[in-house]
Amino acid sequence: MVLKVTVNNAWRAARTLWFVVLVSLCVFISVSRASSPLEEEDSAMENIVTEKKAEESHRQDSADLLIFILLLTLTILTIWLFKHRRFRFLHETGLAMIYGLIVGVILRYGVHVPRDVSKAPLSCYVNASPATLLVNISGKFYEYTLKGEISANEVNDVQDNEMLRKVTFDPEVFFNILLPPIIFHAGYSLKRRHFFRNMGSILAYAFVGTVISCFVIGLLMYGCVTLMKQVAQLNGEFFFTDCLFFGAIVSATDPVTVLAIFNELQVDVDLYALLFGESVLNDAVAVVLSSSIVAYQPQGNNSHTFEAMALLKSFGIFLGVFSGSFALGVATGIVTALVTKFTKLRDFQLLETALFFLMSWSTFLLAEACGFTGVVSVLFCGITQAHYTFNNLSPESQDRTKQLFELLNFLAENFIFSYMGLTLFTFQNHVFNPMFIIGAFLAVFVGRAANIYPLSCLLNFGRRNKIRSNFQHMMMFAGLRGAMTFALSIRDTATYARQMMFSTTLLVVFFTVWICGGGTTQMLSCQRIRVGVDSDQDNSISIADGSERRSTKQESAWLFRIWYNFDHNYLKPILTHSGPPLTATLPPCCGPLARLLTSPQALENECQLKDDDSDLILTDGDINLTYGDITVNTDATGAHTSMGTGFAGTATSDDLDRELTYGDHELVMRGTRLVLPMDDSEPPFTDQHHHMQM
Amino acid sequence: MVLKVTVNNAWRAARTLWFVVLVSLCVFISVSRASSPLEEEDSAMENIVTEKKAEESHRQDSADLLIFILLLTLTILTIWLFKHRRFRFLHETGLAMIYGLIVGVILRYGVHVPRDVSKAPLSCYVNASPATLLVNISGKFYEYTLKGEISANEVNDVQDNEMLRKVTFDPEVFFNILLPPIIFHAGYSLKRRHFFRNMGSILAYAFVGTVISCFVIGLLMYGCVTLMKQVAQLNGEFFFTDCLFFGAIVSATDPVTVLAIFNELQVDVDLYALLFGESVLNDAVAVVLSSSIVAYQPQGNNSHTFEAMALLKSFGIFLGVFSGSFALGVATGIVTALVTKFTKLRDFQLLETALFFLMSWSTFLLAEACGFTGVVSVLFCGITQAHYTFNNLSPESQDRTKQLFELLNFLAENFIFSYMGLTLFTFQNHVFNPMFIIGAFLAVFVGRAANIYPLSCLLNFGRRNKIRSNFQHMMMFAGLRGAMTFALSIRDTATYARQMMFSTTLLVVFFTVWICGGGTTQMLSCQRIRVGVDSDQDNSISIADGSERRSTKQESAWLFRIWYNFDHNYLKPILTHSGPPLTATLPPCCGPLARLLTSPQALENECQLKDDDSDLILTDGDINLTYGDITVNTDATGAHTSMGTGFAGTATSDDLDRELTYGDHELVMRGTRLVLPMDDSEPPFTDQHHHMQM
Repeated sequence: MVLKVTVNNAWRAARTLWFVVLVSLCVFISVSRASSPLEEEDSAMENIVTEKKAEESHRQDSADLLIFILLLTLTILTIWLFKHRRFRFLHETGLAMIYGLIVGVILRYGVHVPRDVSKAPLSCYVNASPATLLVNISGKFYEYTLKGEISANEVNDVQDNEMLRKVTFDPEVFFNILLPPIIFHAGYSLKRRHFFRNMGSILAYAFVGTVISCFVIGLLMYGCVTLMKQVAQLNGEFFFTDCLFFGAIVSATDPVTVLAIFNELQVDVDLYALLFGESVLNDAVAVVLSSSIVAYQPQGNNSHTFEAMALLKSFGIFLGVFSGSFALGVATGIVTALVTKFTKLRDFQLLETALFFLMSWSTFLLAEACGFTGVVSVLFCGITQAHYTFNNLSPESQDRTKQLFELLNFLAENFIFSYMGLTLFTFQNHVFNPMFIIGAFLAVFVGRAANIYPLSCLLNFGRRNKIRSNFQHMMMFAGLRGAMTFALSIRDTATYARQMMFSTTLLVVFFTVWICGGGTTQMLSCQRIRVGVDSDQDNSISIADGSERRSTKQESAWLFRIWYNFDHNYLKPILTHSGPPLTATLPPCCGPLARLLTSPQALENECQLKDDDSDLILTDGDINLTYGDITVNTDATGAHTSMGTGFAGTATSDDLDRELTYGDHELVMRGTRLVLPMDDSEPPFTDQHHHMQM
Repeated sequence: MVLKVTVNNAWRAARTLWFVVLVSLCVFISVSRASSPLEEEDSAMENIVTEKKAEESHRQDSADLLIFILLLTLTILTIWLFKHRRFRFLHETGLAMIYGLIVGVILRYGVHVPRDVSKAPLSCYVNASPATLLVNISGKFYEYTLKGEISANEVNDVQDNEMLRKVTFDPEVFFNILLPPIIFHAGYSLKRRHFFRNMGSILAYAFVGTVISCFVIGLLMYGCVTLMKQVAQLNGEFFFTDCLFFGAIVSATDPVTVLAIFNELQVDVDLYALLFGESVLNDAVAVVLSSSIVAYQPQGNNSHTFEAMALLKSFGIFLGVFSGSFALGVATGIVTALVTKFTKLRDFQLLETALFFLMSWSTFLLAEACGFTGVVSVLFCGITQAHYTFNNLSPESQDRTKQLFELLNFLAENFIFSYMGLTLFTFQNHVFNPMFIIGAFLAVFVGRAANIYPLSCLLNFGRRNKIRSNFQHMMMFAGLRGAMTFALSIRDTATYARQMMFSTTLLVVFFTVWICGGGTTQMLSCQRIRVGVDSDQDNSISIADGSERRSTKQESAWLFRIWYNFDHNYLKPILTHSGPPLTATLPPCCGPLARLLTSPQALENECQLKDDDSDLILTDGDINLTYGDITVNTDATGAHTSMGTGFAGTATSDDLDRELTYGDHELVMRGTRLVLPMDDSEPPFTDQHHHMQM
């Protein structure tokens, strides 16, 4: 009874706190906004005025950033309430957008800052726009840096709405600071087993599907724009390349809301893998696609005609940038794996984590410095780090890196979504055109359908484990647009066409995140999709039915099997401590090299342990001790493997599945949910047994 | 034998990797530098030129940042080698400086970038310097933002050495991005028990000592400058306020190198606490002191005369800014504690960690937005978070937050030190004046001596546990200058005096970090300071000798005891789940409020457990199970406490010490080194026994 009362009290107190934060945010916004111009006429000395101005500007920047921090804090508190009460209809990103909207409205309509008269229009005409400008102001030199071009009709706005412009971040912030951790985290937390099992389908959706979606949307929008021109609804230029660009940016899906619910409800793992894999890769495709469309520049004066050479060049750019970014990402991942393998950094977890972080970050910078796309590099770097480097890290660093990127991802994602809400009111060049918006919604819908249904049909010819129609409907429904679409659309809002796109994109994001995201549970039950499926249980079912299980693997057989064997026999042993020793797998002529690259652990593997199992034992001493049977079990498996590794390249399909299972398992255990390995360690054992009997 | 060979191979491979990184860094610098101006004349269209320029600038920025990332990577790898081989003469920060120096030399002398002709000097005269400039360049408007004022003699440099300027960061980066995590981490990881035990001495060193040091150095430098004027060695103005400013910035000690060695060698905990506490707090004092010296502006034209009013105003600013920053920091810490207490955020560790991070960051922004000093706020926020919020966090979040800030601290610190090395060669307005430098070294030495020796003498009158002369010598020796001194001196390098100060400060930092930092072990053995002292063992010794132990506490009696009782009886119960329930400590008239604020856990405490012990049990299930006697032990202590809490404000001195011991203990366990509570749980028990007997 006493406890009950106190809990209620605590509840009330929590709610009070929540209101306090909300009210303080509002008060803070008003105060910080209103206070700024008051201190300008404090001193007479010019030097001090400049200093004061710089200080004032810094204080204003701090206050602006503080608004976002408070917004995020509020989002966290509210989302905790939602999670606590198991409300699933609104995800934290959706909530962040709502709070952003509210603050946007306050900033737009609630706060009036008197016009800043000190900004004299310059009567200065020069014929170049250098990155740095030296201005001689009454004998003193001031340095100015180029921020960007603004259109002529904005010039007045700049002077009017300085305040609204202040809360507007440089769009490059999204690409250079906020997106990289999100994308890296996506790559680093890719559920490997199910991802690889469905790799063919995922690649098809991500590459072919995104291109289809881009062109379908582009064509439809071009039709829409042509129609608008005829009814004189269009006030500016809108070319076919603009339509295609729009198609590219809204083709990047971001079902973070849906996936969170999938995770919570334990929806079918294959569906999860398909959706997650597709969304991760199509972000990369969309980025490169949009930049190649921008790069489409036919020669001559009429720059928006069709020209085969320019098209080919664009295609070449797409291939070059994508493969370059891919190669760079994988390369830094491999370097990190090698460094962590050949140094004993694991004795100093702080150094190890720092190195991991720095190397992953350097991928981004390196790609950007080389003219490739950092975001794409970071994605593939994340996948490589998860696949190789992760195995070389000490258990503590595995935790640390996971948690670090999880946190960064969480913060960046919610920041972007709350900024999205804010920008609906604070962005000053919105062009809301009803016809364009209706056309866009239609096009987005049709584009998604043209991606999912025909491709699924085609893929089902090759797949034994068919993508059923309810899965297809779910994938269609889960085509949310999110952070990437927003970041791509805000990157360039110079022309009329781009401004219209940006405004429309915002609405598309709002609609899909709130309506599609909010209706996920309803849609799941409506489509009768299995919920509460344990990924391990799912595995053991397929094992019980031998033929079913085998077929799951046959489906991705040829290409994948070659890669898997190569990975297992050469890459894993070279880059990690796991796998069979290279001395066994490499041809005898490479003897010295093999001995150099083989770590002592791998030699021990040969006589004792199977690769990923050794990791399991090393990292989870407790569990190992508690459930003694696992140790026995892994030993058995290990023996089997070392038998197999006598012949290079003969890893069986069971090996493949087991390894992926284990690899995956580690990741799950290191994550926030701790799953005991009890039920998961069973399958390999049964499987092993099964295999022996055959 | 096989193992031995492989380890050697691994070693060789590691060394090869290291060279590869080094060489690739050099190659990378040359390539990235040389490639930049090649692409400028690519296209004819002006619009594309601007876009290209922006892109080029972005690529250059990425490349510049990448240099630092690679530098840090290299530092990590080298420091691992050093740690691996137990080299103690060079700390990672010292190493980072060396690498920075090398890259600085390469950038300065190795790379020649052809002069950028596109930067036309502007023939534009305006009479104001707005924060944003709109420039009409052949019909298009470009927006420029104010970067700062540059002196007339720099104007030519700007055009000459664009490349060197590019790798020069905005000095505000240090204050707004790099220092806050360092300072927060210092506050968050303050070893509380020993810090509080020596609080009086630490406050004396930090406040009185820093002010003494500042004025002594200022006076000596003024003498030096006057002498230089007489021998015509001075080419610019140098006022007394400049000298005092120099005194303030070089009074901030940063013995990170020494403390790392102390930690490793387990040097006497009191010495550690004195040095660490002093260095943490005197950073805060130096920041506020320097800003109040800058704020000293006598009225009238002759702005560098003595004027009582202006001095008083400066003193008022010092007090106001310091107490304001302090209050803000503590306030956000308290808000975080309340939020984490009254919500069940601990069920969702990610949300909890994110909230903690955001609230801690918001302290900084709030302080900056209010015109206080963010760095100081962040320090006191860190201490408050460690003292209260930390107890409310889930064990996983305790780990996460510790590790997160540890990582941020590590990266930021090494970044600053490598930047320091770099800037010795890349900064373009160095003024190295031999007389000034010699004077500065002398003044720094004398200033430190005038801080330590007289104060120690005075303090020893009050302390029973005297600060022995070898401790004093060690503190004198450990007066390194580091990140804070550098950040303060680079913040403003506009005038001749400031440039000379900056160059001299750099040399002081280099000298102290390399020479004093490197000689720490020699100094320790030379001064015969106990090494390998276990902080717990130390405690039990003092317990064995009852009188000695009591005296340690008497020393900081009156003020501290009042605070401690208040903290234990009111603050801890209000802000955390620990401590006696408020219903017992508050007067009966506050009944409803007390019930509202008392958490169910605290009520349970009353009948079962003592505050910090409950934390120990909650967080360390395993240890608790393994060492059953602790549970018994804590129960016994708990019973004792609930006895004591019947009378408000009667917590005994044993309580005080025990609580600090436990609080501290948690921190150690959550840190990187896991210490079993075995030996530490003993003292309270013996002590308890001891107390009962008395």
